[in-house]
Amino acid sequence: MALPVERAASRREYKVKDKSQADFGRLQIELAEDQMPALVSCRSVFGPSQPLKGARITGNLHVTPQTAVLIETFTALGAKARWCSSNTFSTQDHAVAAIARDSAAVFAWKGETPQEYWWCIEQALDWGPGGGPDLIVGDGGDAILLIHEGIKAEEAYESTGNLPDPASTNNPELQILLTIIRDGLATDPQRYHKMKERLVGVSEATATAVERLYGMQANGTLLFPVINVNDAVTETKFQNLCGCRASGDGLLMAADVEIAGKVAVVCGYGVVGKDRAAALKEAGARVIVIEIDPICALQAVHEGIQVQTLEDVVSEADIFVVTAGSSKGIIMVDHMRKMKNNAIICNVSPFDNAIDMLGLETFPGRKRITFNPQTDRWVFPDTELGVIVLAEGRLVNLGHATGHPCSVTSSCSFANQVMAQLELWMERDTGKYEKKVYALPKHLDEKVAILHLGKLGAKLTKLSKEHAD
Amino acid sequence: MALPVERAASRREYKVKDKSQADFGRLQIELAEDQMPALVSCRSVFGPSQPLKGARITGNLHVTPQTAVLIETFTALGAKARWCSSNTFSTQDHAVAAIARDSAAVFAWKGETPQEYWWCIEQALDWGPGGGPDLIVGDGGDAILLIHEGIKAEEAYESTGNLPDPASTNNPELQILLTIIRDGLATDPQRYHKMKERLVGVSEATATAVERLYGMQANGTLLFPVINVNDAVTETKFQNLCGCRASGDGLLMAADVEIAGKVAVVCGYGVVGKDRAAALKEAGARVIVIEIDPICALQAVHEGIQVQTLEDVVSEADIFVVTAGSSKGIIMVDHMRKMKNNAIICNVSPFDNAIDMLGLETFPGRKRITFNPQTDRWVFPDTELGVIVLAEGRLVNLGHATGHPCSVTSSCSFANQVMAQLELWMERDTGKYEKKVYALPKHLDEKVAILHLGKLGAKLTKLSKEHAD
Amino acid sequence: MALPVERAASRREYKVKDKSQADFGRLQIELAEDQMPALVSCRSVFGPSQPLKGARITGNLHVTPQTAVLIETFTALGAKARWCSSNTFSTQDHAVAAIARDSAAVFAWKGETPQEYWWCIEQALDWGPGGGPDLIVGDGGDAILLIHEGIKAEEAYESTGNLPDPASTNNPELQILLTIIRDGLATDPQRYHKMKERLVGVSEATATAVERLYGMQANGTLLFPVINVNDAVTETKFQNLCGCRASGDGLLMAADVEIAGKVAVVCGYGVVGKDRAAALKEAGARVIVIEIDPICALQAVHEGIQVQTLEDVVSEADIFVVTAGSSKGIIMVDHMRKMKNNAIICNVSPFDNAIDMLGLETFPGRKRITFNPQTDRWVFPDTELGVIVLAEGRLVNLGHATGHPCSVTSSCSFANQVMAQLELWMERDTGKYEKKVYALPKHLDEKVAILHLGKLGAKLTKLSKEHAD
Amino acid sequence: MALPVERAASRREYKVKDKSQADFGRLQIELAEDQMPALVSCRSVFGPSQPLKGARITGNLHVTPQTAVLIETFTALGAKARWCSSNTFSTQDHAVAAIARDSAAVFAWKGETPQEYWWCIEQALDWGPGGGPDLIVGDGGDAILLIHEGIKAEEAYESTGNLPDPASTNNPELQILLTIIRDGLATDPQRYHKMKERLVGVSEATATAVERLYGMQANGTLLFPVINVNDAVTETKFQNLCGCRASGDGLLMAADVEIAGKVAVVCGYGVVGKDRAAALKEAGARVIVIEIDPICALQAVHEGIQVQTLEDVVSEADIFVVTAGSSKGIIMVDHMRKMKNNAIICNVSPFDNAIDMLGLETFPGRKRITFNPQTDRWVFPDTELGVIVLAEGRLVNLGHATGHPCSVTSSCSFANQVMAQLELWMERDTGKYEKKVYALPKHLDEKVAILHLGKLGAKLTKLSKEHAD
Repeated sequence: MALPVERAASRREYKVKDKSQADFGRLQIELAEDQMPALVSCRSVFGPSQPLKGARITGNLHVTPQTAVLIETFTALGAKARWCSSNTFSTQDHAVAAIARDSAAVFAWKGETPQEYWWCIEQALDWGPGGGPDLIVGDGGDAILLIHEGIKAEEAYESTGNLPDPASTNNPELQILLTIIRDGLATDPQRYHKMKERLVGVSEATATAVERLYGMQANGTLLFPVINVNDAVTETKFQNLCGCRASGDGLLMAADVEIAGKVAVVCGYGVVGKDRAAALKEAGARVIVIEIDPICALQAVHEGIQVQTLEDVVSEADIFVVTAGSSKGIIMVDHMRKMKNNAIICNVSPFDNAIDMLGLETFPGRKRITFNPQTDRWVFPDTELGVIVLAEGRLVNLGHATGHPCSVTSSCSFANQVMAQLELWMERDTGKYEKKVYALPKHLDEKVAILHLGKLGAKLTKLSKEHAD
Repeated sequence: MALPVERAASRREYKVKDKSQADFGRLQIELAEDQMPALVSCRSVFGPSQPLKGARITGNLHVTPQTAVLIETFTALGAKARWCSSNTFSTQDHAVAAIARDSAAVFAWKGETPQEYWWCIEQALDWGPGGGPDLIVGDGGDAILLIHEGIKAEEAYESTGNLPDPASTNNPELQILLTIIRDGLATDPQRYHKMKERLVGVSEATATAVERLYGMQANGTLLFPVINVNDAVTETKFQNLCGCRASGDGLLMAADVEIAGKVAVVCGYGVVGKDRAAALKEAGARVIVIEIDPICALQAVHEGIQVQTLEDVVSEADIFVVTAGSSKGIIMVDHMRKMKNNAIICNVSPFDNAIDMLGLETFPGRKRITFNPQTDRWVFPDTELGVIVLAEGRLVNLGHATGHPCSVTSSCSFANQVMAQLELWMERDTGKYEKKVYALPKHLDEKVAILHLGKLGAKLTKLSKEHAD
Repeated sequence: MALPVERAASRREYKVKDKSQADFGRLQIELAEDQMPALVSCRSVFGPSQPLKGARITGNLHVTPQTAVLIETFTALGAKARWCSSNTFSTQDHAVAAIARDSAAVFAWKGETPQEYWWCIEQALDWGPGGGPDLIVGDGGDAILLIHEGIKAEEAYESTGNLPDPASTNNPELQILLTIIRDGLATDPQRYHKMKERLVGVSEATATAVERLYGMQANGTLLFPVINVNDAVTETKFQNLCGCRASGDGLLMAADVEIAGKVAVVCGYGVVGKDRAAALKEAGARVIVIEIDPICALQAVHEGIQVQTLEDVVSEADIFVVTAGSSKGIIMVDHMRKMKNNAIICNVSPFDNAIDMLGLETFPGRKRITFNPQTDRWVFPDTELGVIVLAEGRLVNLGHATGHPCSVTSSCSFANQVMAQLELWMERDTGKYEKKVYALPKHLDEKVAILHLGKLGAKLTKLSKEHAD
Repeated sequence: MALPVERAASRREYKVKDKSQADFGRLQIELAEDQMPALVSCRSVFGPSQPLKGARITGNLHVTPQTAVLIETFTALGAKARWCSSNTFSTQDHAVAAIARDSAAVFAWKGETPQEYWWCIEQALDWGPGGGPDLIVGDGGDAILLIHEGIKAEEAYESTGNLPDPASTNNPELQILLTIIRDGLATDPQRYHKMKERLVGVSEATATAVERLYGMQANGTLLFPVINVNDAVTETKFQNLCGCRASGDGLLMAADVEIAGKVAVVCGYGVVGKDRAAALKEAGARVIVIEIDPICALQAVHEGIQVQTLEDVVSEADIFVVTAGSSKGIIMVDHMRKMKNNAIICNVSPFDNAIDMLGLETFPGRKRITFNPQTDRWVFPDTELGVIVLAEGRLVNLGHATGHPCSVTSSCSFANQVMAQLELWMERDTGKYEKKVYALPKHLDEKVAILHLGKLGAKLTKLSKEHAD
């Protein structure tokens, strides 16, 4: 695929949906700055010394006004940035337009096809003759995946002369990837090796990608240092929860139901499940938890929540929220067949297969009626009864909601990205970071909390010297 | 004003925005039925005896899929209905289209001008040669106001020959009313007297209108019996709260802010204020209450909430929610001048003047930037700082939100309307109801609770005879 | 019964358990003053004008340090007081000793027999030759009951010459009452008539007594004006709840169980039931509600609480809390037979028969093991299983707990008593109050809230003149 | 010190306060069994194979009915036990009497002097000629401390001939320890070496002791394997919290205050602080947090809680709860001087010095008035104002409360002790455990959760093989 790329007055490249929305995007970015004190504080604290001077940063992370604040923090610290999204639905086109005009090369629009999505990643990684980026800001790991697959293919090609074969896999996403790599090999058989050569490190923000990267570290295939921003305390305690809660609040609005008095089943009582259960209780639902882990189950019971199996409650509940998943599915089409008419099912886990959409889509004679954006009623032909599935069974946080797919992004999360990038860049020649996954150093984590607190009016007690000893 | 009226295949009149949305509206109505068990149960319980046979019901109440379920419950019980909205923003055009096609005369569309709004009320009251409706379902009292003003004008005209003069008032709404009445007098100088003659009674659902009606009862000007549905227990305990909460949840989404860590000022700690404060606390805000009533203030303090004056906290808070109002304003433009940049202000009271929009609009040099639907940033010229006002300072529950302005309407509230209408109609010849405001009889109130409970899986304990004695 | 009465240095009469505890009681009273800002404020606000000068007040209300603060507020306002308790268990002997020495005639000790209890009431009503009290402060209505029964007996005696016959009733309490009255008739056949003559009015604080008094008003037997302090807003919103909650917190400590993870059944979802359910949820129990009222049931369901019948859940719950009762019992011995071993049963309703203690006590072969103060395990002989009943099935708030049976008494409640007494006394010659039950006037209620707020650091917003209009 | 030791019929030794309470203690133990499902389940699961056969277990842990259930679980699994308390106040004498009569050697009574306390530890460690115990169950680390100090002294004595000198230290506790060791050396200069020789390992339950043991591991002085039960998930998530909450609920009852409407300062927002803050909020207090850690501070702010310095709020708060401490004190006497009259101060941290009791006790002219058990009012002479300090400023969980000093002990915590002891004993010859501190293996932790869940009616979902892969 080759799409036309445009250039801003600054000669920066971009590909956006509607340039004319730049002013409106700028307004949104300014409002977002107000909500991101930790991130904006980075500019005044670090900006003067230009610590990222000379760094090329490729971002592969939802493009929203909040992300624009992140990008423009990087550029305020001296870096250059090229950006693409990590999700085909979450992009806010006005923000993209403003970024393209004012601050960075960007390739993203709402509703990209899978081909377009990967093309955008390619552009964001392509810094021209000098190779790839120095640093990558990741949120899902797709850019990193492309580099690793590219390296593999280049090595195979060098030793065997074989090009990667998209037809060798059934996975449609992988087919696109292999096509890109195959086409790239024709131009430059060392493209991804050159990228790897230059790359100083990566910061990654999603649990799923981090887990995969730990796996690669374990089997020795990880090609560069990674700082795991997802497990930063300011991330785990605030961003994950707040992000989920804020987007989850809108979760059931789409289906326009009253939650009070309903029975809500929460599958999984981990961090996200606890948060969802608490919100549903507060809204007046009676919550039932499904768990496999005895300790999480015991926590639920100790908080006055019944723990049952899905089979026991599938036909009496009104709302099903899946917070944990696996590759094989939690809620299967057989469960859906037993549910009450218009039971609502949504997925707040990162696993697309947690809800058996394949089984639902291929159920003979099923009808699908989209009655609100990304809100479908699936009707079974024999009973004329149906279930309501949000966001096509995918992560409701991002895919769903009408106006603001990726609404609230906490200041802390992005400030952690800045800290991680700074750390990787400052230590690029010291050998401190090897080809491993690292936690964000605690003092950086605390630094972010302090930056954030400053704007919230809190007064921290100073430890006296005597106490510290 | 004379707008063209269309006719359905059934010869029923209507005026809607887009007939073609009728199928989609029907789907939404079907989904709404699922959420309104008490209301739908009325059809099976009362339908067979057709108790409303022959009754003409005029409704003056938001037109949404939920309202369609109400209207179609009336028709299932034998009544005929003509309907208009009680709010120019809350109308859902697809629901209107379905009602027009399938069940009742309806005159409503989203975004009516004030003139159009009152024209719609006129149509809904106009049942042709035989006079007006037998019953009115009210939600704000506008239809009733029109009749009362009409009567007054007709009496004045009869005794003095004078027509009402719209120029005699500065109130733009009253100008429209007087114009309508003046134009009507030319056609039929007894129009509103005939209406009054036929009218059996009214059920009214809003606190504001009920209060006005009690005032009319006190000074002897009330012209027909009213059942006050707003104070029904199933209304006060559930509908008011749930309605406010559900719509309030979306309240701050428009401005895309994270509530956790913010300072939120709630003006008024009555029923709505308590609910809003609880929701804001749950979302992680630190809440401060403004109160004039010592008992409400004491309640706040006993729940761990600080009570301060607005002056004390105006410059440190991030969010201002006005839940109680008056004709002179709670948050004045002088307060806004002292607020933090991008402080958010919203009104969940029924009083349009609770927030000093006039002061804001007429502030010299102020800029207004609409950055989300009904979400405006107002910037003061000297400081370049601004505040964000939702829904132009009017009731955020209804006017705001992107897709579903009047999202969740509880089944109970509308079932109470049905009970009240049934009661008025059954007792129309018994003299039970005089020209007064009545509470909904308690046994009808409980009947609604029982109908609702039936669908929620609750098991009520029966009082044994021995206990009852 | 004739017990010896002692006299303080001041010649005031008293009957207490241990005079030597007066200093310790004084210390407790001083600490209690600190917790009762509204009440103590009455002294500085009203004290200078001595508005109760000359008034004789008889109190029939738990004698604790908090009550001492009340009594000494009355005396600070110029009144004289004679006091007895309204409960045989709640008395704190050190407080009694301090009152006897320092401020009022008092007749009360912990663990009075029923005979002693009524003897104390007799003493508190006996102001010597001049007849009875001017005012009565009631908390349960026993003193008032005695006067009404006395009048009845005197009338019967006058017309028929018959003395009341204690053997004519099975009710042991009534037998005592009739004995007292019979013995009194011998001395003075107009004793209660004289009391009635002098009595200006009564303020009463318990729901049960108020209900009985309304009944007497309805059938025309009420003999004097009553101000119902129980329904004062500052009472209903604060005292009832806080009192119940504070004493309820200790409720299950006696049985030394962990509440988290347990299933708790709450019988009745009225004001007290809602509070108990909330506290149990907070403590980690899964709560199930038993209700006969559909509206209360609907509230429970809307708050995510299951509503079931007692029969459905009797064998799976760990804790049973009865919050509403009747003369025939809610939890019968047959229910107890089906409960889990060591299920805990407690009564927080004012009805002694809510739990079928008679059935339990008379169950053949049952064993009773007291393992903590007022905490009994009752074992059924056939199964060797048993239930744990707190406070012998009577109101756990007062009867239970080791040290402080009637621990927290809110400042507001007693300040309302002061307001009511002041009102009755100030209006004693105006005819404002007839032989009816009256609500506490709202401005007095608000006055109490304002007095209380003053000490809690809250700042009330003043209504501007413009707004007030 | 040499106290007389008695012997039970079984020849077991004991030293208790009152043998005659054994029956009552047994009743309390039976009731406690009912509340400890995980622990009691260990008997049926492991009892038949007698896995602890031959093991000598010394326990140094509060002696209560709950502890008796633990001891008798050990004996049910084949072990022999000798027991002493880890706290001089928490002992329940009736439970001790029952243990002494029925199941184990025990040396404990409520109100031991420091000398008696250490004498009891000596007895519990003294298994006669064969040396010391095989295993130690620790809760504070005192028994372990004695052994380490003993070894040190024996080594010094062996090399230099010097006996330890109690006069060499100002620490009164250490003086007692050195006296014991010195006196022991005269009898057997290898006593503690023999103990070390035999000792297989230790399980320890308190955070403070575990921290010290990690320190010893770090500097190479740890003499035997330790399993850290304090950090077991079932411990951290349940026992710590529940234990604190349950005892904390009674915390402020002693002072007989109403919490609603009060300002409560919580020093430290860690696990315990979060729990205390939540409970105080629920009870109606306005909570203010004092923190030095930015991340904990941010959490507080995000939950709507103000973060201030102690200096800012010391004069406006009513209640001060210290949840974190250090050797130098959090609340100093200078703070107390600035507090409101009768402000309440309590310590729920394990650090005795968190509240500056020394400064208070030595303040010239201060008065101390004990008005409830362990509840003191300290009055400053110049102002006549005072503060109320609970439990003499020591950990309020254990030291305070009238009847049940160590009320609720979760089943899980003690079951973890059993798991740890089993693990140490089963692996005693495999070399699996070195002289280090180990976490409780996760599968044992989960085992405890499963045992507990079984009794709570929860149904765990089984992971299918497919999912597990």
